[in-house]
Amino acid sequence: MCELLGMSAKHETDVSHSLALLRPRGGEIGPHADGWGLAFYEGREARVFKEPVPAAESRCLAFIAEYDYRSTIVIGHIRKANPPEFGRTSANTHPFSRELKGRSWVFAHNGKLPGIDADPRFTLERFHPIGSTDSEHAFCLLLDRLARATDGSPLGAADVAAALRPPVEALCELGEFNFLLSDGMHLVAFANTELHYVVRSCVERGCRQEVVLLATTALTDEAWLPIEPGRLHIFVEGRETAA
Amino acid sequence: MCELLGMSAKHETDVSHSLALLRPRGGEIGPHADGWGLAFYEGREARVFKEPVPAAESRCLAFIAEYDYRSTIVIGHIRKANPPEFGRTSANTHPFSRELKGRSWVFAHNGKLPGIDADPRFTLERFHPIGSTDSEHAFCLLLDRLARATDGSPLGAADVAAALRPPVEALCELGEFNFLLSDGMHLVAFANTELHYVVRSCVERGCRQEVVLLATTALTDEAWLPIEPGRLHIFVEGRETAA
Repeated sequence: MCELLGMSAKHETDVSHSLALLRPRGGEIGPHADGWGLAFYEGREARVFKEPVPAAESRCLAFIAEYDYRSTIVIGHIRKANPPEFGRTSANTHPFSRELKGRSWVFAHNGKLPGIDADPRFTLERFHPIGSTDSEHAFCLLLDRLARATDGSPLGAADVAAALRPPVEALCELGEFNFLLSDGMHLVAFANTELHYVVRSCVERGCRQEVVLLATTALTDEAWLPIEPGRLHIFVEGRETAA
Repeated sequence: MCELLGMSAKHETDVSHSLALLRPRGGEIGPHADGWGLAFYEGREARVFKEPVPAAESRCLAFIAEYDYRSTIVIGHIRKANPPEFGRTSANTHPFSRELKGRSWVFAHNGKLPGIDADPRFTLERFHPIGSTDSEHAFCLLLDRLARATDGSPLGAADVAAALRPPVEALCELGEFNFLLSDGMHLVAFANTELHYVVRSCVERGCRQEVVLLATTALTDEAWLPIEPGRLHIFVEGRETAA
């Protein structure tokens, strides 16, 4: 089992705040000791840092935490390699990233999708896994469907939801499928078993800030709520948007 | 003007050796102070580190140098943003990376290709720039042509050369086009103005090691030679291969 972390905010906020929540979960207070990854956006480009080592011991993660990176969207992941044949390599470490129509797309998954490789419904077209995980296969499938949906103009929340709904429903038949996906504008959150969120609203640097945090389990003492299972949730600038 | 660095080796060797050559060129003894980037391979996956800050001042680069990363292929780049409208952002920092048929492809460029955006010969299909540089546009074009050339089976050196030759010749008409490109097996080197190489052969950890280093200008006291301009050179395991 892995742990997901997501953040969507109205205004840029410190990436180190998200990191501080994630880091102790990876091998210190949590059992997810096979890797960690963090992606955040600078405009249309995702910066992705990941390593197949425990987050709590990572010198690299400790180092990033000292940088003053700021972003409106963050996706993080702590990995427990499961099944173990999906080895501890950088290629098997989440989040995964691909370019589609001039934007970075980023994906992280919690769960298992046994049989995805062999199922003809999930044959891949344009995008292909570099590593050996079911998760990266699922990401490539979602991107194939998003690529079909776009004629080159940017996808809105409704377009994203319409393209994702059929493959997500089909993938849910295989097993646990809790994921976060982003293109730098939208943060898509989906769970068929477990994913929680909390909303924060405050004044930050003189601006009204709105933030939504998503995580596999509650990471703070705030009143985290489970997200509605089986439904695509799309967040833009810290708020859920109709999709 | 930017500076390129490439390495292809028969056996894995320390990435920090390549870094040590690159780092002082970025803002300390060279004027290339707008960014640095380094990619190396772990199997089919490229790990890419880059920052829009001077290499010589980068805490991140200093940090990577302390890690014991090993690889058979490295591509590095030190950036002088030119023209300045291609801003100092991560998206505009080389090397660029994309997935094609389950492998990471990595590209870094030295030179200028004015007019690439407007020229109908260079209209893009599948791959699109995330940033605003002529370099990333050229990379996307080369990948579009490589994507057309593959039916899914791995590309050999002759396939890679055959796919690249026409677009590379056409791009040369626009201006300076010195680049390094890799899929983790092949290191493609091309120059129409300036690129040098040196070959090293030694016994390392009990194995016969073969290494080729490529760089814009000689980086050591060894006898660096200019590569033959206008011709695609493809290196595999530290040696040039017929293409």
